[in-house]
Amino acid sequence: MDKEETLVIKEVNAETFDNFLGLIAKLAEYEKLAPPNEEAKMRLRRDCLSANPKYQAFIGKVGDQSVSYIIFFFTYSSFLAMPTLFLEDIFVLEQYRRKGVGQKMFDFLKETAKREGCGRMEFTVLKWNKSAQDFYEKNKAKRLEWYFYRLEKEDF
Amino acid sequence: MDKEETLVIKEVNAETFDNFLGLIAKLAEYEKLAPPNEEAKMRLRRDCLSANPKYQAFIGKVGDQSVSYIIFFFTYSSFLAMPTLFLEDIFVLEQYRRKGVGQKMFDFLKETAKREGCGRMEFTVLKWNKSAQDFYEKNKAKRLEWYFYRLEKEDF
Repeated sequence: MDKEETLVIKEVNAETFDNFLGLIAKLAEYEKLAPPNEEAKMRLRRDCLSANPKYQAFIGKVGDQSVSYIIFFFTYSSFLAMPTLFLEDIFVLEQYRRKGVGQKMFDFLKETAKREGCGRMEFTVLKWNKSAQDFYEKNKAKRLEWYFYRLEKEDF
Repeated sequence: MDKEETLVIKEVNAETFDNFLGLIAKLAEYEKLAPPNEEAKMRLRRDCLSANPKYQAFIGKVGDQSVSYIIFFFTYSSFLAMPTLFLEDIFVLEQYRRKGVGQKMFDFLKETAKREGCGRMEFTVLKWNKSAQDFYEKNKAKRLEWYFYRLEKEDF
């Protein structure tokens, strides 16, 4: 990216929501998963743009092109008695990788966590995703001695 | 517990907050960790009882005795486009264990997740805590193939 192609990170709004959905579909494609269907897209829109959003989303643009996005929210550490910034998704379009875009998105998250008075940042990484693990470890993230458990809707 | 000693689960409020802090101190003692100091207690109170609480807390009472608590909040699955109930803490006083109190607290969480339209419930468990793992697996929770990562405040 030359200087006319600086990454600009902005909160997703009604105008940029379709670009954001386009990036989510690209991530699904990359992970060989089904993209969100029409009902899921409606829920994503409502849960992002309502007065009490259920998650926060930002996209990174280079010129007119939407190239990256992050989804995060604030959880809470009862041990620290401080909020935690939890990173749910981070994605960079294939053709914009290895240009520092992911690092800029991650730096933006670090600044957000600091500004919001968080005591921690947390996220999960698939066991096979070594390149993501290297990236996070370069950023001083530590892998914890915890198992991560989930109950699906049909089991509650 | 006989029939006069039914477990009653109630949201923590200004009146019961000190009982709740007492239980948090008991958990810290059990885990051989320092209990929250005065500043942390003030933050816990503000973050629970303010108009926009950062976490939700409920205590279980048997008669006049506060015997258990849960702390949870709602995260979000971008894949499902649905909220997730994330269980941060669940604790039962030593002398009230093996009486079904933990299961009743967990059933309450399942009902809450259902009522709030969640697609999942999630939580982490220490690798050495086999009895907690057995409890969750009995409740159909599945251990995921993810690593759990954390950045501490000094690293962002």
